[in-house]
Amino acid sequence: MTIEEFEHLSSSSKIPDYFLGVDGGGTSCRAAVSDRSGAILGRAQAGAANITTDPDGALQTILQVCRQALEHAGLAQDLELYPAYLGLAGSMTGQAGERLKPLLPFSFSEVRSDGVIALEGALGPRDGMIAILGTGSLFMARQGSELTSLGGRGFLLGDHGGGARLGRALLEECLLACDGLRPFTPLLEKTLAGFGNGLSGVISFAKSSPPSAFATYAADLFSSAGQGDEAAIQILSEAAHLINLSLDKIRFDGCDALCLLGGLSRSYDSWIAPHHRSLLKEPQGDGLSGAISLAIRTFG
Amino acid sequence: MTIEEFEHLSSSSKIPDYFLGVDGGGTSCRAAVSDRSGAILGRAQAGAANITTDPDGALQTILQVCRQALEHAGLAQDLELYPAYLGLAGSMTGQAGERLKPLLPFSFSEVRSDGVIALEGALGPRDGMIAILGTGSLFMARQGSELTSLGGRGFLLGDHGGGARLGRALLEECLLACDGLRPFTPLLEKTLAGFGNGLSGVISFAKSSPPSAFATYAADLFSSAGQGDEAAIQILSEAAHLINLSLDKIRFDGCDALCLLGGLSRSYDSWIAPHHRSLLKEPQGDGLSGAISLAIRTFG
Repeated sequence: MTIEEFEHLSSSSKIPDYFLGVDGGGTSCRAAVSDRSGAILGRAQAGAANITTDPDGALQTILQVCRQALEHAGLAQDLELYPAYLGLAGSMTGQAGERLKPLLPFSFSEVRSDGVIALEGALGPRDGMIAILGTGSLFMARQGSELTSLGGRGFLLGDHGGGARLGRALLEECLLACDGLRPFTPLLEKTLAGFGNGLSGVISFAKSSPPSAFATYAADLFSSAGQGDEAAIQILSEAAHLINLSLDKIRFDGCDALCLLGGLSRSYDSWIAPHHRSLLKEPQGDGLSGAISLAIRTFG
Repeated sequence: MTIEEFEHLSSSSKIPDYFLGVDGGGTSCRAAVSDRSGAILGRAQAGAANITTDPDGALQTILQVCRQALEHAGLAQDLELYPAYLGLAGSMTGQAGERLKPLLPFSFSEVRSDGVIALEGALGPRDGMIAILGTGSLFMARQGSELTSLGGRGFLLGDHGGGARLGRALLEECLLACDGLRPFTPLLEKTLAGFGNGLSGVISFAKSSPPSAFATYAADLFSSAGQGDEAAIQILSEAAHLINLSLDKIRFDGCDALCLLGGLSRSYDSWIAPHHRSLLKEPQGDGLSGAISLAIRTFG
């Protein structure tokens, strides 16, 4: 099909033939293009697209990755021909998403959080809840047209269930143990030993590291807790308490599905309270498939 | 006295006639020069001297403020004529103090933490403990020649009793209350109302503010706790618990003096456990007077 044929078809039917979906996060930005049935015709991936910290760079990355997905599908790369549904990290807080929307060249566009597309991807059309437990933590529920979101808010003040906060809590306990205000446990000793110059190494690391670096300690915490390490159990109990409180808060009557997403989803499995754990389902798809599905539902 | 006379006197007696003391902190750097009796002959003050974050700038500030103090005293400004005792913020952690020492032009120099000179200033020659409760928190004890230090470690992982951590805990509780995971209290409502655009205002503030900005919430916390605000009482109870644990840890048999120093010393007074509160004494002097006193004791 030539561009002329495509344009004719598009304008005559008023229903687009192709749909773009974008999953833009702090570490990578992915795009896909599908037909009306949802079949993926092309995909592409690029680096980070953080519209809060780097709006100009994020815009360029989004446009580039969409053009690449179209190229991969063998379709015309004129972005104004296609509707796009974007799920972007950071678009829940502040007005970054609102500022971005008028700058987008797509025929139609919708900008929502990465949580929204993750929920659609995980649950498909059904109602239910998701908990995204990765570097940060975010909770969402959908009941019919009603969407509830809770948590997130970043490393310093929020994201209590995320790996970065877990790692920070672990390093904080290490320092308190050095001061004799907490008993040393095997995990605290092991963690401290990992810093060549001990205490001052921990402080230097904390000053210079992004949240994702703190999150690398999460795996140690879960395995140590499994071996009865009291510091690990204490830190994870507090995080799990807030996770379960958050699920209590967003859960609606009749909710029968909960998907755990993100890098810590398997690790947290056994820490989820029984009344929520009984709802656990495997996610149907990822955020990018959710973006495509929402693009078709919104613009199709 | 001319410089020639001074130099002759210094070299013949081997005991310096004049002593420099420096109190270098994250917000200001002060110097004083005294005679052998400790009488202050000249003083000067300049901006921050943080040897950890800005070693070159800190060195220049220290030398400049010493020259100004000598000028104020009407003494020759050749720094190599005088011994100096420096108490510098940040010199406890890392090797910043060790790196600085060979760069100093003084006839003799000693570089210690600001805590060391604060202790000497507060207690004079007697043994005892100090708690520095300002933006951060630090605890020290001296028994004879033995000096014990505990706490500090900075905003992200330490300084649990300091105003910056108190403010951060308050903002964190505000976000949890917004998510319905904590009950709103009058203080949480008031704090949130202070941010024009609510929740996203809190997050923006947290991302862009230094610890000292977080510390501005400490006063509200203490006054609200006095009015029975449960969030304030909870936050201060946890901080006070670690303060009292820290004092338990550094306290030695026969200790009969405790000085509370820093901007929050009056506010925390009633939160100190009775067995420590019974030791409370008014500080004799400040960190700069402590630096002078240590200069005379060390080099005199």
